[in-house]
Amino acid sequence: MIDFNSYANGGITLIKPYQAGKPIEEVKRELGLTDVIKLASNENPFGMSEKAKEAAFKAICEGNLYPDSNGYYLKHKLNEKFGYDMDCITLGAGSNELINLLFQAFVNKNVNVVYPEYSFVVYPMETTVGGAEGRAVALKADYTADLDAILNTIDENTRIVAFANPSNPIGTAVPSKDMYEFIKKVPKTTMVVIDEAYNEFNSGDETYVDSATWLKEFDNLVVSRTFSKAYGLAGLRVGYMLANKEITSILNRLRAPFNVNIAALAAAIAALDDEEFLKKTVDNNTKERERYATYCKEHGLFMIDSKANFVAIDFKGHDAQLIAKELLQKGIIVRPLLGYKLQDILRISIGTKEENDRLFNELTKLLETI
Amino acid sequence: MIDFNSYANGGITLIKPYQAGKPIEEVKRELGLTDVIKLASNENPFGMSEKAKEAAFKAICEGNLYPDSNGYYLKHKLNEKFGYDMDCITLGAGSNELINLLFQAFVNKNVNVVYPEYSFVVYPMETTVGGAEGRAVALKADYTADLDAILNTIDENTRIVAFANPSNPIGTAVPSKDMYEFIKKVPKTTMVVIDEAYNEFNSGDETYVDSATWLKEFDNLVVSRTFSKAYGLAGLRVGYMLANKEITSILNRLRAPFNVNIAALAAAIAALDDEEFLKKTVDNNTKERERYATYCKEHGLFMIDSKANFVAIDFKGHDAQLIAKELLQKGIIVRPLLGYKLQDILRISIGTKEENDRLFNELTKLLETI
Repeated sequence: MIDFNSYANGGITLIKPYQAGKPIEEVKRELGLTDVIKLASNENPFGMSEKAKEAAFKAICEGNLYPDSNGYYLKHKLNEKFGYDMDCITLGAGSNELINLLFQAFVNKNVNVVYPEYSFVVYPMETTVGGAEGRAVALKADYTADLDAILNTIDENTRIVAFANPSNPIGTAVPSKDMYEFIKKVPKTTMVVIDEAYNEFNSGDETYVDSATWLKEFDNLVVSRTFSKAYGLAGLRVGYMLANKEITSILNRLRAPFNVNIAALAAAIAALDDEEFLKKTVDNNTKERERYATYCKEHGLFMIDSKANFVAIDFKGHDAQLIAKELLQKGIIVRPLLGYKLQDILRISIGTKEENDRLFNELTKLLETI
Repeated sequence: MIDFNSYANGGITLIKPYQAGKPIEEVKRELGLTDVIKLASNENPFGMSEKAKEAAFKAICEGNLYPDSNGYYLKHKLNEKFGYDMDCITLGAGSNELINLLFQAFVNKNVNVVYPEYSFVVYPMETTVGGAEGRAVALKADYTADLDAILNTIDENTRIVAFANPSNPIGTAVPSKDMYEFIKKVPKTTMVVIDEAYNEFNSGDETYVDSATWLKEFDNLVVSRTFSKAYGLAGLRVGYMLANKEITSILNRLRAPFNVNIAALAAAIAALDDEEFLKKTVDNNTKERERYATYCKEHGLFMIDSKANFVAIDFKGHDAQLIAKELLQKGIIVRPLLGYKLQDILRISIGTKEENDRLFNELTKLLETI
């Protein structure tokens, strides 16, 4: 038999499959539980906006027809809402697909890619797929990105420097002002990819600036966004990438023509218009994030400062893996970060008040015994 | 400004964007029409199965949750229904995505790709993206694939030979027996990709064999299928690819982890169970395809023998482009094939009896004047 692995391009055979959070149904089935909550995948605890749901239902009624391959109406809505130039938008089945496409287009064995340590696992994965060298730069002691160290790591062969801001799985964010100064210093030959999946949870404070407004100034800037988190459309798969027209044209040619489904296109438009739902989501998150901080302080746990819809808690002194296992037995799914080699840290998505209370109660009991 | 085109891998900058059929809404808007039918994108004229629609609705209600990244239940259903080994299945957002992934994984500047002339435009496009040499092999005079010529074109550097069977945009099919003999003769180092998007419309006759049953015998065989055509789920985006476990593992690592959305996963499972809807679709198609053949014979038009849910009609002697334009004015969208450099041929999707009657009526009037 032919060894097809030997035929595969770049470093595809070196990567391991992405480890997704356990679906609720699977946990119920495996553990024989009925009441399970998932605080593992940073999903919206309020479900979907009713308006988005209605739009998706309506779209499904024409599910036999191909989607609009250009996503005209969604791009138009993004333009109307935020002023983004339609020629600078690429739509994707979640921002994950767009990041994959960007790497497929621009990463190869002759270049390197720089990212902060403990970044979204997709950056190193896609760097490996492309056969490129990946350079992970250690975080500062407070778990924020070390911008100076990143600048020092970039050289003339760095094609991409990729950031999640707020970061995932850590949750810290680089303030707008610092990000702007950083981009200014990055060589024009390196693309700065800011993955803003958690943007809406970060945009509350007064120093926040929409990084997409810098696109005019920086040809090498690429910003990605998703409807999976604050907009609550993770299951539908839709996100967008903003970049200069040349990069956008390349991505639009590379993507499959019908990469975003009709339900997602319709729901995303409706979700953008449902400002009330977005506000409810963000407000709950801000408030509950504060409660996590208080809880951690009261129980001697170190919660890393979060600007996202999850918290990364360092359980040093306790067995974090055992805590995750025991919580699972109680019907609470949280996210261990062993894939990131973070043994002591668990990532917990911020749920509704009730969900968080349930977690606090179970965790308090566990901390007394573990 | 940096020329980002010069940074793009392979031949990405050489490809033009895919030209999708005009959406109904766009035609209505542009021409001020209210009653428009689309016979252009080979969609299901009966819409979606009601069962699939219900399943999609139910799934949408949990649209805030990520889809099962492994698509366990859909793979299980495919196994149950057709006996396909779950480890040999890759799910994708339509078979288009899967073809893109396969090419991304295995095509590069050191190999070539062979396909019949007038194949699905995605094969030459993805060949170009990969920077590989594409070798189009002329069809026989009856518009069927010339298997001997294809075999003669394959050499030791041919990584992929790709076929749509039934073909698109032409509609002819290679009979199972001939396909089997062909695969036997292809060198083991060349992957034989059979794109069976239109399979369900072809599987009626008694000589048909499910090509996926040959996977055990041929390690280099890859079969792709879609739910976009006979199953009527084009808007939801879901298809699958069957291949040996090694190739499947590579594709599953390369795809984005949540590439198929929840509505599509649920609808596909329900669609597989709705045999009545599938039968209705295929029966209508077979019957109406006969009516197209009769119509063409009666009106001196040459209809290429079709095994799919569309017919390619050679209008030689008439101006096919003008006919398409005039039909559009009458609210009937058909598909010109200028992208394939087929000036005289229009591709017409087979609709319901009523839709086809409307086309016949308008066409008869046009043929008298053009």
